Amino acid sequence: MEETIFQKIISGEVPADTVYETDRVLAFLDIKPVHKGHTLVIPKTAVQDIFTLGDEDAGYLMRAIVVVANAVKQVTAAQGINVIANNGSAAGQEGFHLHFHIIPRFARGEFHPLPHTAYASDDERVEFAQKIASVM
Amino acid sequence: MEETIFQKIISGEVPADTVYETDRVLAFLDIKPVHKGHTLVIPKTAVQDIFTLGDEDAGYLMRAIVVVANAVKQVTAAQGINVIANNGSAAGQEGFHLHFHIIPRFARGEFHPLPHTAYASDDERVEFAQKIASVM
Repeated sequence: MEETIFQKIISGEVPADTVYETDRVLAFLDIKPVHKGHTLVIPKTAVQDIFTLGDEDAGYLMRAIVVVANAVKQVTAAQGINVIANNGSAAGQEGFHLHFHIIPRFARGEFHPLPHTAYASDDERVEFAQKIASVM
Repeated sequence: MEETIFQKIISGEVPADTVYETDRVLAFLDIKPVHKGHTLVIPKTAVQDIFTLGDEDAGYLMRAIVVVANAVKQVTAAQGINVIANNGSAAGQEGFHLHFHIIPRFARGEFHPLPHTAYASDDERVEFAQKIASVM
């Protein structure tokens, strides 16, 4: 895996506005923030995306997300927080090291990250559920 | 905490298209999907949002997200996956039981969940980082 900007931040080669750090995770401000206080939480392990996140790192990462989300909410006086990971360039991922966005939100209706579409029928939905269930 | 639709799904009072279940987590199709295969992953514990997610559930939940994200990607042949939790109505939360959306994505540029704004200055950004760091 090619070294990403995130790995350079972990190693200290590239500076960042660090807000939280443990042996396993790092959190720092996003340089293209949706709102002030927008923070990224990453595992220190070189993990490209959610698909290859290991069991141990999964626990450390989600616990760090909880800590950082609370801190960002407190400091920004946000009314809500979006927690978002984009995996794969089709999903909007930029920088191929898994990162969770912690985004403070201040008013309902600013934007909604989820445009809705629908299945053609209930049967199609049920069929989809069965397919997904069958591969786990 | 008032009983939510999610707790009724967990108890079986309300039916859902379940795709994955363990003692601690449940995953089922979103009834307002962005794309077919759009799935929700939730803890069985009554947790309102990310802010109060406990350490144990954090680990179980993130590990389930990894399993489900891989399955949804495989079945839908998605090129990417968004993992999104909206916390608080200002962030777009509907249903006050923590839930992570697993959303398959098929082409770059369909939509982007993150409109960008900016700090007024580098100093302001650094100051924000220090404030957030100081409360953890």
